[in-house]
Amino acid sequence: MIHEIQEGYVKIDHDHGITSLEFYHPQSNALPGKLLHELAQEIHIAGLDPKTKVIILRSAGDRAFCAGAAFEELESIQTESEGTKFFSGFAEVINAMRKCPKFIIGRIQGKCVGGGVGLAAAVDYCIAWEKVEIRLSELALGIGPFVIGPAVERKIGISAFSQLAIDATLWRNADWAKKKGLFAEVHESIENMDHSINRLALSLAHSNPDAMKEMKKSFWKGTEHWDELLHEKAAISGKLVLGDYTKEAIARFRKARETQKTKAPA
Amino acid sequence: MIHEIQEGYVKIDHDHGITSLEFYHPQSNALPGKLLHELAQEIHIAGLDPKTKVIILRSAGDRAFCAGAAFEELESIQTESEGTKFFSGFAEVINAMRKCPKFIIGRIQGKCVGGGVGLAAAVDYCIAWEKVEIRLSELALGIGPFVIGPAVERKIGISAFSQLAIDATLWRNADWAKKKGLFAEVHESIENMDHSINRLALSLAHSNPDAMKEMKKSFWKGTEHWDELLHEKAAISGKLVLGDYTKEAIARFRKARETQKTKAPA
Amino acid sequence: MIHEIQEGYVKIDHDHGITSLEFYHPQSNALPGKLLHELAQEIHIAGLDPKTKVIILRSAGDRAFCAGAAFEELESIQTESEGTKFFSGFAEVINAMRKCPKFIIGRIQGKCVGGGVGLAAAVDYCIAWEKVEIRLSELALGIGPFVIGPAVERKIGISAFSQLAIDATLWRNADWAKKKGLFAEVHESIENMDHSINRLALSLAHSNPDAMKEMKKSFWKGTEHWDELLHEKAAISGKLVLGDYTKEAIARFRKARETQKTKAPA
Repeated sequence: MIHEIQEGYVKIDHDHGITSLEFYHPQSNALPGKLLHELAQEIHIAGLDPKTKVIILRSAGDRAFCAGAAFEELESIQTESEGTKFFSGFAEVINAMRKCPKFIIGRIQGKCVGGGVGLAAAVDYCIAWEKVEIRLSELALGIGPFVIGPAVERKIGISAFSQLAIDATLWRNADWAKKKGLFAEVHESIENMDHSINRLALSLAHSNPDAMKEMKKSFWKGTEHWDELLHEKAAISGKLVLGDYTKEAIARFRKARETQKTKAPA
Repeated sequence: MIHEIQEGYVKIDHDHGITSLEFYHPQSNALPGKLLHELAQEIHIAGLDPKTKVIILRSAGDRAFCAGAAFEELESIQTESEGTKFFSGFAEVINAMRKCPKFIIGRIQGKCVGGGVGLAAAVDYCIAWEKVEIRLSELALGIGPFVIGPAVERKIGISAFSQLAIDATLWRNADWAKKKGLFAEVHESIENMDHSINRLALSLAHSNPDAMKEMKKSFWKGTEHWDELLHEKAAISGKLVLGDYTKEAIARFRKARETQKTKAPA
Repeated sequence: MIHEIQEGYVKIDHDHGITSLEFYHPQSNALPGKLLHELAQEIHIAGLDPKTKVIILRSAGDRAFCAGAAFEELESIQTESEGTKFFSGFAEVINAMRKCPKFIIGRIQGKCVGGGVGLAAAVDYCIAWEKVEIRLSELALGIGPFVIGPAVERKIGISAFSQLAIDATLWRNADWAKKKGLFAEVHESIENMDHSINRLALSLAHSNPDAMKEMKKSFWKGTEHWDELLHEKAAISGKLVLGDYTKEAIARFRKARETQKTKAPA
């Protein structure tokens, strides 16, 4: 089943208790609001479906897992409420993931930027390729990693989270992400990565759903206020994004991205 | 002084302010309820004894530090209240350790499984041999690491704890456990490990007991509700353990263990 | 601008939005109460000054970043209230750092002991030289790392913090401190370290101050009670320091330090 939205999609596959959710967007899997909403919905549905025992979250292509928020939308924001709504997209997905009573395995085959790091942090078990790099570039855009902050801090702690957030132009490699706890496993080939994901998913598909549900609940204990918290965080970004700082930063960033595109594919 | 219980024991030694508590059970130091109760009692007594300045928690033999809960008892559980009582055994020991006003050094000379990982997490300073491996196999038994969860998460964080708990069949080595913070030190030989344990114990035996008492209190701040919390957690396991999933898993696990025994000692 | 106090100083430099605060004391940059108070004041002032975009905290010389509390003062304490006041010095600086709405980069060019580790933990981004070693020697003095505890635990977690605090005579190297999250970066030469500090400071000096203010607030969320908490902690140390244990330990420590001085500079 494929839901095509604008230029991207969310694709759902069921296989022996394993539900794969794959998202795609031509711009390095950057996610516009509609795709984020669609993704949150599908996670919610898979959580309710008794045939789903475990979920794999993945993205299409081999370059970027997720480049964060969609630039076109970011640039078009004119009011605080539009801004808040825009940044609520990742909040909705992260909240769907934490409330889903099933384990979500993340398949990280490419770069994670901004919101993409948030998704990797919000899965329950993250398996990545060793060439993957991550970055929280929000501050370079005049904003900050507010909405995804609680999910990232929960997984890697305040020290590693603030390192990523403060030095917003530095890429950190998969080894760093593994040491800090973002990735549970890092594999030297895509093949090995997929092998390990399948092994774990199969094992969980045959495990006790009641036990997994209780484990999921206990792992996410203390995050019951995140529906409100992440919305408040979205409002912070929604306000900052209207400042001149961000307008100029987005223009600079966009230009650099386009120059890079002409030179060589990143 | 030795308290023999069924087939195992808890042995207590005092030496110049250092109290060693050694437990033993013929089945890879898996702990039945009575031994857990005895161990909790002895930790409590050592905590009150002015002659005890520091405690070393150790187990007998050179294969397993502790294989977790005793299988015979696990299999015999018929009601939720029996289940809750069974799983409360590790809760009692962990609570005795956290409330003990003295530092507890863990001597980890062999494998830690399930509740054994919980004991390693609940000591204040853990020194291990480099060949040690650890595993939280609860989910493979249809249950989950609920009772020991708070102690493990406190020590190694939610990321590492959930990695261990979700991939329930994977052994993690001592290096992993050290990186994640479960072990403070890892030594290449049992001799070096014991040398380091003795050095630290001796140093603490000559340190200010009032300062250590205040430090212990501050390290465990925020766990005041664990008497109730761990009991609630025991009730979750106590309920899950009655399901068909667990009955079958225990039978499979037991068979595998017995087959392994016939082949070669693990 | 230099404020000379007794034998030490706090020096302030402004350069294109970057404010450097340098402290110095002839005794391995151990900090007496007056210097701590001065440092807290200057952090507060820089936080308010619109010309300051980012702060660098550094110390003079190339041996010790900060050896902790000043021994002369420690020895002269006669009452609990004097003790509490003395230990409140680091509390004041840590509280000034956490409440400062600007990012503070720590430049760690030498050993950190006791309170010095607390300062390194309370900066927002710590860049160190690879030969640096750290130690929490409080317990060896009959006291404990109470005042700095919350800052250190927040940054490196309860496991690493308790390791440092319990084994009070063991030096841990910069690699350990980086792995545990105390240092964000470790460089093989002072030159590279300074290059990296300048790069980051320059980048932050051109970043959105409103975004950084919100990020700082979110990083330190949950520490709003530290004004009281750290004062309570100071009272614990203030009481312990009057015991015979500490008196003797200080005498021993002082003697060892003086012997070491005669032999070779540490």
